[in-house]
Amino acid sequence: MFRILKKSNKSNARLGVISTPHGDIQTPAFIPVGTQATVKGLTVDQLKQMGIEALLCNTYHLYLRPGDKVVKKLGGLHKFMNWDRPIFTDSGGFQVFSLGYGIEHKTGKLAGYYHNLRPFIYDSKNKRLAKVTEEGVEFRSHIDGSKHFLTPEKSIQIQKNLGADIIFAFDECTSPLSDYEYTKKSMEMTHRWAIRSLNEFKKFKRLNSETLNQQLFGIVQGGQYKDLREQSAKFIGEQNFDGFGIGGSFGSSYGDSKENMRKVLDWIISFLPEEKPRHLLGIGGVDDIYEAVKRGIDTFDCVQPTRLGRNGSALTKNGNLNLKSSKWLNPPAGGPIDKKCQCYTCQNHSRAYLAHLFRVNEMLGPILTTIHNLYFMEQLMKEIRSKI
Amino acid sequence: MFRILKKSNKSNARLGVISTPHGDIQTPAFIPVGTQATVKGLTVDQLKQMGIEALLCNTYHLYLRPGDKVVKKLGGLHKFMNWDRPIFTDSGGFQVFSLGYGIEHKTGKLAGYYHNLRPFIYDSKNKRLAKVTEEGVEFRSHIDGSKHFLTPEKSIQIQKNLGADIIFAFDECTSPLSDYEYTKKSMEMTHRWAIRSLNEFKKFKRLNSETLNQQLFGIVQGGQYKDLREQSAKFIGEQNFDGFGIGGSFGSSYGDSKENMRKVLDWIISFLPEEKPRHLLGIGGVDDIYEAVKRGIDTFDCVQPTRLGRNGSALTKNGNLNLKSSKWLNPPAGGPIDKKCQCYTCQNHSRAYLAHLFRVNEMLGPILTTIHNLYFMEQLMKEIRSKI
Repeated sequence: MFRILKKSNKSNARLGVISTPHGDIQTPAFIPVGTQATVKGLTVDQLKQMGIEALLCNTYHLYLRPGDKVVKKLGGLHKFMNWDRPIFTDSGGFQVFSLGYGIEHKTGKLAGYYHNLRPFIYDSKNKRLAKVTEEGVEFRSHIDGSKHFLTPEKSIQIQKNLGADIIFAFDECTSPLSDYEYTKKSMEMTHRWAIRSLNEFKKFKRLNSETLNQQLFGIVQGGQYKDLREQSAKFIGEQNFDGFGIGGSFGSSYGDSKENMRKVLDWIISFLPEEKPRHLLGIGGVDDIYEAVKRGIDTFDCVQPTRLGRNGSALTKNGNLNLKSSKWLNPPAGGPIDKKCQCYTCQNHSRAYLAHLFRVNEMLGPILTTIHNLYFMEQLMKEIRSKI
Repeated sequence: MFRILKKSNKSNARLGVISTPHGDIQTPAFIPVGTQATVKGLTVDQLKQMGIEALLCNTYHLYLRPGDKVVKKLGGLHKFMNWDRPIFTDSGGFQVFSLGYGIEHKTGKLAGYYHNLRPFIYDSKNKRLAKVTEEGVEFRSHIDGSKHFLTPEKSIQIQKNLGADIIFAFDECTSPLSDYEYTKKSMEMTHRWAIRSLNEFKKFKRLNSETLNQQLFGIVQGGQYKDLREQSAKFIGEQNFDGFGIGGSFGSSYGDSKENMRKVLDWIISFLPEEKPRHLLGIGGVDDIYEAVKRGIDTFDCVQPTRLGRNGSALTKNGNLNLKSSKWLNPPAGGPIDKKCQCYTCQNHSRAYLAHLFRVNEMLGPILTTIHNLYFMEQLMKEIRSKI
């Protein structure tokens, strides 16, 4: 399912192809996130036109709405969203982290969101929306506060129902603020959950062709502790997974998250079997991608390019461009985001027009900037692949 | 600039072509509204792919943001929004109506909007945001409350700066609740404003090719009063306009607005020169279009198809389909909006997926449904043209 075409002689970087029933993914690849079975604001044709080969959807969100059973009845995620190329689904573990420690420590990506928007968060008795036990995670929906219980087995069942090509074992993502003892216990539980995920994956009746060729990736945890990361990579790497995810919240504001990420990759990469693909979960900064590819990472997913695009921030080789600024409305500053860029947005629209759209809250601003940002990521990965 | 290709022998309907420097418009035509220089959520390519030949943008909104002078500096509206086909701009008169009587009588399309969102509306001293005098209209911006003064001359200057192909004379649109006396006085003023608009249009220095071949349409008013409508059509029809708009607020909840619209068209149409195009302002219901075409209307603009689309209501030959209903998530109800429809949305996506998108507030729901609705209108007009 994974073929290495070429290895760099300067680093651990490799050029490869992940094959799935819905086509191939040239690696290293950036996988855009379509949280709720849609990349926000873009049609599948727009995604295909820019050469995007795979998407990652969120198990937690799709389990809540429309529900994995609904998706299954409607023919699976590919048919549901009319995306006939490869799909990844995550395990729901990261969202559990966001609902639990993410809120307490304010490090989860969703923490601010929940704090700002959901009144029941403020109930001191319900401070945490998620409670982790050996069996699994009890959590409340961020939508209506309803109670749910997610286990490794259930995560696999949901992901089987959704029918993505590449699915992930259920894990707990610890906070960068968790101490050694908690991180160790959590990692050990994540390892037990990995085995339970694998067992469920194996025994699951392969009822239809959509799920027949799913690939299950295990997830390495261990926080910021070298011995735990090594232990985790060794343990997970020895299991019969089709590939590996590297988890953890590097995105905290405590310490140098980029440096943490590089350190972790340096610690673990040699413990992961070379012949299997490696996915770095939730990472998508340009610098981070360069550094991670060098260390042997094959695929990435991250909401950053799309989220930045929606917020009026365009990716360029010279950093992010704030399209909300009124200065773009003053000629001659009205050229495209990047004169050399071949994306639909740069070929058709000026910074001035984009600035106008953002300033008057028109949907087309986020749409056009998301198109540019995802195209930018595609070109970045293409360039990286050409250099290996 | 307008050629009649064929006249119906059963009604006043005519098949024609409006020619502009940016191409032709086959009539009868529905002109989608791109209020702020964008059809909400759609790229210009998506609009072209469904065969849309012209758009109507709003002078009032573009005057406030980004400003007509900014648009002019950036090369005019066509270049600004990268739409190389014909553009109409309205005169700003309807928005003035919405800010003035529209709010007092709660009949303006924007009335509810201003009531709900803009606190300064509640200041009893500033109940009306607009004040009409012979010279023009003083109004406050709905965005920041800043004061502005719009006159027939200024409306033409703004529309010259924007550079649309077809522009409209400045008018006051009276409320359906206005009495005979007010409506008569207002109409007479609208006639004087029409002459002032024409004079400004003629004397305006033709500085660049974009504005060289603009066409100016006069607007017939007169409310719901037969003698006033006749008087207005006669007066406006005799002026040297390139075409005519029929104005008025038929959309009120007082009385049968559809019936009012038909009556008005029956009263006035014979007073408007047959060889010039006729535009029915702000009307876009399917039934209304049939009735108006029969009575000799050539073009229509209306926010309804796009607004309904954004709100999850899909146009079909059997009425509007509410895509927000959870029932579509239960198979086998998951087919497309219309099995026979050839639009991008119906060719690619199910009602189930659309229902999901609306239920989770994803932008793609409004986008896909707007595409369907505008395609539906295009097909409707094509069918109407084929039957004349």
